[in-house]
Amino acid sequence: MNVTLRGQTRHYRTVAFDAKQNAVLLIEQRLLPHEFKIIPTRDFRQTALAIKDMVVRGAGAIGATAAYGLAQGAREFRGSDLKKFTSHVETVYQTLKAARPTAVDPVNAMNGVRAIMRRGETVEEQQSLALAAAEEFANEDARHCAEIGEHGAKLIRNGMKVLTHCNAGWLAFVDVGSATAPMYAAQAQGKKFHVFCDETRPRSQGATLTAWELAQQKISHQIIADNAAGHLMQRGEIDLVIVGSDRTLGRTGEVANKIGTYTKAVLAARHKIPFYVAIPLSTIDWNLKSGFDIPIEERHESEVLGAWGVLQTNPSTPNPKASRSRYIRVANPTSGARNPGFDVTPAELITGIITPVGIFKPRELWSRRRQLGFEK
Amino acid sequence: MNVTLRGQTRHYRTVAFDAKQNAVLLIEQRLLPHEFKIIPTRDFRQTALAIKDMVVRGAGAIGATAAYGLAQGAREFRGSDLKKFTSHVETVYQTLKAARPTAVDPVNAMNGVRAIMRRGETVEEQQSLALAAAEEFANEDARHCAEIGEHGAKLIRNGMKVLTHCNAGWLAFVDVGSATAPMYAAQAQGKKFHVFCDETRPRSQGATLTAWELAQQKISHQIIADNAAGHLMQRGEIDLVIVGSDRTLGRTGEVANKIGTYTKAVLAARHKIPFYVAIPLSTIDWNLKSGFDIPIEERHESEVLGAWGVLQTNPSTPNPKASRSRYIRVANPTSGARNPGFDVTPAELITGIITPVGIFKPRELWSRRRQLGFEK
Repeated sequence: MNVTLRGQTRHYRTVAFDAKQNAVLLIEQRLLPHEFKIIPTRDFRQTALAIKDMVVRGAGAIGATAAYGLAQGAREFRGSDLKKFTSHVETVYQTLKAARPTAVDPVNAMNGVRAIMRRGETVEEQQSLALAAAEEFANEDARHCAEIGEHGAKLIRNGMKVLTHCNAGWLAFVDVGSATAPMYAAQAQGKKFHVFCDETRPRSQGATLTAWELAQQKISHQIIADNAAGHLMQRGEIDLVIVGSDRTLGRTGEVANKIGTYTKAVLAARHKIPFYVAIPLSTIDWNLKSGFDIPIEERHESEVLGAWGVLQTNPSTPNPKASRSRYIRVANPTSGARNPGFDVTPAELITGIITPVGIFKPRELWSRRRQLGFEK
Repeated sequence: MNVTLRGQTRHYRTVAFDAKQNAVLLIEQRLLPHEFKIIPTRDFRQTALAIKDMVVRGAGAIGATAAYGLAQGAREFRGSDLKKFTSHVETVYQTLKAARPTAVDPVNAMNGVRAIMRRGETVEEQQSLALAAAEEFANEDARHCAEIGEHGAKLIRNGMKVLTHCNAGWLAFVDVGSATAPMYAAQAQGKKFHVFCDETRPRSQGATLTAWELAQQKISHQIIADNAAGHLMQRGEIDLVIVGSDRTLGRTGEVANKIGTYTKAVLAARHKIPFYVAIPLSTIDWNLKSGFDIPIEERHESEVLGAWGVLQTNPSTPNPKASRSRYIRVANPTSGARNPGFDVTPAELITGIITPVGIFKPRELWSRRRQLGFEK
């Protein structure tokens, strides 16, 4: 999507590849929204470290980073011994896989790249195929998000107020995003609407990443405390909710997503406000039979007990030069916290699931499984 | 309630009076939870400033502060000219009233003190009656909170997990608090239970004030992000919700309270978890006919866009010496925010209202109005 720096607007992908320098180009997401910087990782170990240290996050984005990282590692090999090359690629694969051991996207992405790469008969051919496959993976991710946008844009009408939670934006993918895709497509169609971004405590991805994205794209928006959506719904100020998903159960239509998503679904149902979940096909889990089987990560309590941001002398006047992020302790220092990272929203509260191939009722996913890429 | 400083446990009231020094003694609440300090206000103008600048906040606490401030101001008068004295007292009254112009508690409290004071026939008698009336106002506030505790403690059973939102604790009153009163009474009865404190963004009163109170009282508790309660309810980890109220409509049973309260009530209803509101009688509004007529204050966006706390080098290791509170900007600096301060919970979502005279169904308040201190 577009980023404006010093008056210049340019299109960037969250993840890209510089073939000449054999470097993966990543938006350094830990600096956002206070600073925008592209960092090149010079070898596959640096790429793995960038995944591990959260320079890049989000399902599609880390998938593409691992795909590029595998191609990058393959291209670092010097010589023509195919056996040694294959052993080297295995090291690259395992290093990238270990960078985020619980994530499924890097593994799926790398398996796809490796399968295509192996069609080559020489080291050089395999290196070239690896890069082409990684590029295709990234392009497909962006294309799927754009397709989510085309389907989802129909839901957004002129003058609507749309609520979103957390960041399921282009920063979580290669481009366009999932929950934000319908917004960007509707904007391209000339529709005017307003977005409320839930702050999304404890990590504030809504206030930092989603708000930054929408500001760059010049979409009218405001941040709200996670506490405020219920009141706004009660007063008729929200017409539509669109969120993303970390895992969607193909058998039941249940959706695991950032903590707080379930609350917004309960509120939307009470107020008869349509609640949609936008997902790329890779997040559908065709195996699990109940949302209660999804493991809910308990994260470190320091996230709840404090906050990250840049120091300001006067709360009313942002200091545009401040960029160094600092941690403050907000809470009572002798108290602890519980910090579940995700929650599960049942199908009954979800109006529809927006996918690259169309919008479906959550309980319809299973009967549409062939169309949705289910593989036995 | 109790405060432990350097190993010494002592009982403190949020607001007290030192007759010898003619000073109001206030807990400097803006320093909590990072520092505990009692500050004396030396004259009525300093007392008004303390109300204005939020050294003291909360309905009961600012009522008592204004009552003491009126007595303090009356006692500053030198001489025996009753007419000049009455004119001086009027200045004191207006100065304290102007300190928090939308609050009703300081005015009610001062009207009560003034009515009793006027029974005196000399300046000296009036000065003495003013102080006695202010002391009685403060004692009554603490007594009413204790009575809320006696009634509400019946709801808390051994092993329960109780959720509360914002701070309706002793720091908001002279002592004991409203939503916390049943907890302190249940603890005194030897019951064991656990409290989840909603962080309560944007001002984080749950993470700062309520958590600090509960820690001082040695009640088992954890802070959670406002997003987390829905998940915990879904997993059966919350048995009871108790919150306070800024204004309760006597005619309809609707409750205005800190933003986010309504959301918790909607979630509790879905999960069939009892949802109680603890209120002193002074917060009942017998006039308004609909919750939609309650003006909802829109507060400054900087509250949502950032946070207050003390700097820490390492998020995992609190620095017990850090006490200077700093503001950080969390959100994207080119985004704005909406910041409604309160919301309204309808009667249908409220299991009961805990008052000093008993627990009532919200729609029962009107028929019980004589008992609840309604005055035509």
